Amino acid sequence: MAASAGPEIERLISLLAKLPGLGPRSARRAALALLKRRDQLLLPLSEALSIAADRVKTCSVCGSLDTQDPCAICTDPQRDPSLICVVEEVGALWAMERAAAFKGRYHVLGGLLSALDGIGPEALRIGPLIARATEPGVKEVILALPATVDGQTTAHYLAERLEGTGVTVTMLARGVPVGGELDWLDDGTINQAMRARRPA
Amino acid sequence: MAASAGPEIERLISLLAKLPGLGPRSARRAALALLKRRDQLLLPLSEALSIAADRVKTCSVCGSLDTQDPCAICTDPQRDPSLICVVEEVGALWAMERAAAFKGRYHVLGGLLSALDGIGPEALRIGPLIARATEPGVKEVILALPATVDGQTTAHYLAERLEGTGVTVTMLARGVPVGGELDWLDDGTINQAMRARRPA
Repeated sequence: MAASAGPEIERLISLLAKLPGLGPRSARRAALALLKRRDQLLLPLSEALSIAADRVKTCSVCGSLDTQDPCAICTDPQRDPSLICVVEEVGALWAMERAAAFKGRYHVLGGLLSALDGIGPEALRIGPLIARATEPGVKEVILALPATVDGQTTAHYLAERLEGTGVTVTMLARGVPVGGELDWLDDGTINQAMRARRPA
Repeated sequence: MAASAGPEIERLISLLAKLPGLGPRSARRAALALLKRRDQLLLPLSEALSIAADRVKTCSVCGSLDTQDPCAICTDPQRDPSLICVVEEVGALWAMERAAAFKGRYHVLGGLLSALDGIGPEALRIGPLIARATEPGVKEVILALPATVDGQTTAHYLAERLEGTGVTVTMLARGVPVGGELDWLDDGTINQAMRARRPA
């Protein structure tokens, strides 16, 4: 690294390099951009980070991040309390909200079962999910987990665990994504789309 | 964006998205990574930014960034004061220092002449460069500017301006980069390397 930049800049670069999407080289570029725009970018970002550290907490009901606990979604009377959508992480919850495809509540698992990474059921928020699913008024649990090996393993495990609760357990449909050209799709997706075909 | 994330998180995401190399999507991922690692990443980064904002300044001699003014390079008695290496930006200075190919001092122009972007000589630190070049003891000014149209325009302009000062004006060699396979090189580089060929 650039010894001449001084330890303060080096520390800034090494912290920025820990962000996903930034490597050592782009972290240097980001640090330079910050130092060049001290008042417009560096100070506001420093403040936004400290505010976020102060105020953002994990919702004790669903596991999402918000400045209030329970979070805005869990306390929103407009949202249907009979539907619980299970997602892997808060990023997936945000994606669902952007799509505005769901008007119930969420449950953030905090990861996926993974034999390879040694992540078992006790590491995830599965107990609280079962407890929520057995509450009166809950009718359906939608497993919105990724279409990966770990995602599907987790979905099967959850479906089994939820069997006794009496709720309907569903999962997201599989098929050709919007704008998806067949030429560019993987074989797995084409196969799923073919098997799940429906009347036109 | 995710309205459910709250204004504090939205502001953090939009500031992160202004960093080079991060778009809206990767800024969200970065914000999530920060919020998940509050004590290991979020708080340290907030602190590093505020320390950098407090302490890092522009060197009044060479234009580099450091916590001292004049900077560590300008005040280092081990470095040859007879050589001045002209670079576009602090990022280029850091790259030169990483390569450890130069033991003189620097001059950061703060940009390049660009007719397209309306950047004229008065917008760059050219006056101070001429002043430094005429100081007694300065023997050589090395133009380490990018091999682009703007870089070369700027280099020619500086060479002309420096003509009367009596210093030797040089520029970095052009040719095949280390590890460069001819197959992957652009025609311009191959042509330059051929014209500048030397005995093996």
